[in-house]
Amino acid sequence: MKLCRFGAPGAEKPGLVDADGKIRDLSAHVDDIGPEVLGPEGLAKLAAIDPASLPLVEGDPRYGPCVTGTRHFVAIGLNYADHAAESNLPIPEEPVVFNKWVGCIQGPNDPVTIPKDSQKTDWEVELGIVIGTRASYVSEADALNHVAGYCVVNDVSERHWQTERGATWDKGKGFPTFGPVGPWMVTADEVGDPQQLSMWLEVNGKRVQDGSTSTMIFGVTEIVSYLSQFMTLEPGDIITTGTPPGVGLGQKPEPWYLKAGDVVELGIDKLGRQRQDFVAWQPA
Amino acid sequence: MKLCRFGAPGAEKPGLVDADGKIRDLSAHVDDIGPEVLGPEGLAKLAAIDPASLPLVEGDPRYGPCVTGTRHFVAIGLNYADHAAESNLPIPEEPVVFNKWVGCIQGPNDPVTIPKDSQKTDWEVELGIVIGTRASYVSEADALNHVAGYCVVNDVSERHWQTERGATWDKGKGFPTFGPVGPWMVTADEVGDPQQLSMWLEVNGKRVQDGSTSTMIFGVTEIVSYLSQFMTLEPGDIITTGTPPGVGLGQKPEPWYLKAGDVVELGIDKLGRQRQDFVAWQPA
Repeated sequence: MKLCRFGAPGAEKPGLVDADGKIRDLSAHVDDIGPEVLGPEGLAKLAAIDPASLPLVEGDPRYGPCVTGTRHFVAIGLNYADHAAESNLPIPEEPVVFNKWVGCIQGPNDPVTIPKDSQKTDWEVELGIVIGTRASYVSEADALNHVAGYCVVNDVSERHWQTERGATWDKGKGFPTFGPVGPWMVTADEVGDPQQLSMWLEVNGKRVQDGSTSTMIFGVTEIVSYLSQFMTLEPGDIITTGTPPGVGLGQKPEPWYLKAGDVVELGIDKLGRQRQDFVAWQPA
Repeated sequence: MKLCRFGAPGAEKPGLVDADGKIRDLSAHVDDIGPEVLGPEGLAKLAAIDPASLPLVEGDPRYGPCVTGTRHFVAIGLNYADHAAESNLPIPEEPVVFNKWVGCIQGPNDPVTIPKDSQKTDWEVELGIVIGTRASYVSEADALNHVAGYCVVNDVSERHWQTERGATWDKGKGFPTFGPVGPWMVTADEVGDPQQLSMWLEVNGKRVQDGSTSTMIFGVTEIVSYLSQFMTLEPGDIITTGTPPGVGLGQKPEPWYLKAGDVVELGIDKLGRQRQDFVAWQPA
């Protein structure tokens, strides 16, 4: 099942994407795609609905972030060995955990703002995990029972802020618009093995990232179990799981970064694709 | 004006603490002490109410976290020169920013859980800033216009997780119960100069921290302005601004950490006090 949220920012409605790729309106069944519906019972109720019985959404509406009510937007760093190498950092012995401020979450195709004084705005295609049920001290064997589904995330990053402005990374990860999420949350049953998904990202049509979740250092079950030792994961939380090689920082012969006018497209097998215009910051 | 939230966890009601220190019930006027009431208009409406007209709350109810709807729980590290020294870290050239997962927020006197495999659970009395209006790219001169008020925060930390388990600090800062906030949010007008507040913390009655916000490296105006270059601060957000010397990590002749049965009490001038029993983790 592919779930989505469609409509204007802040006024999104819940939707289901049918077998033909059309959005069907779920408003008569649920208020939104949020913590209340992401548990097994909530998803089972939605799965029991015949998509053909749902109103077809006309036109080509905006996709919002595919889930709402996210309280924790957790990120894993350096989770692909080749990306650690291109970042000139050692392969981590255990997951590197950082935070993306939830205020950066936006729709998958909304423009991304290059901050006013940004020097190094960069891209990162990533597999996002959506938590379905509360997870505290869960084992790896039990971890997938707490996962509602998966989505595409662009973990947009300001490298100068992330690594040259003090001891932690959070500064460079949460500027508004730096968290495109969606277009869909695809339920775990439909995705199957989350470690067999190819992923790609293009800047202005040039393929720069071409990877697979099969080369993650720490897989989905390890990540969920690990994080649940340090925090309680809650329904609606999103964990973005790291990026394969090919970010701007790692380009040869020298790094290059995004500028206003650039277009970034990215996608992951089964999870759909995103497209962002990168734009200059403007006073509100 | 001192605002609070009282009652059982998850069912708190909004309250106002009167001149006699008694809680008055604000339920007839506002649903909660959250983003909707923290702006200047919302606070002005509450200030116009005669406290004597509000129902007196009987008994000695639990205090919840003094604000709700917090989406970002931002923390500043090493913000007192002497604390940087006791941590064996250089004085930062610009604010060190990290994250406390919002799921760790709890009432000021609720028990704090020592995680199952914790080695180094530590304390930190801190001045918390509560944001009243959205702040993006605000100047230092304008920064205080975005502050609704202040509160006490205990930035409970697991040092081993924070500094010895990978590249960032977030792992050691957001375990459930690691964010006691309150008892009150005292409005900025009543606090006056936030850089003239003495603060203290005791473990089992022994005074270990005894400081003042006057020795912060980066003050409230700098912090709010600075953060607003990297993220958008939203009403209800809490910024905890760093701790003076005297944490467990800095004890002489050697560090010591909290164990089940310890009692931590802490307070800040004008902002009230907290008291936490530290307890061993138990399966739910």
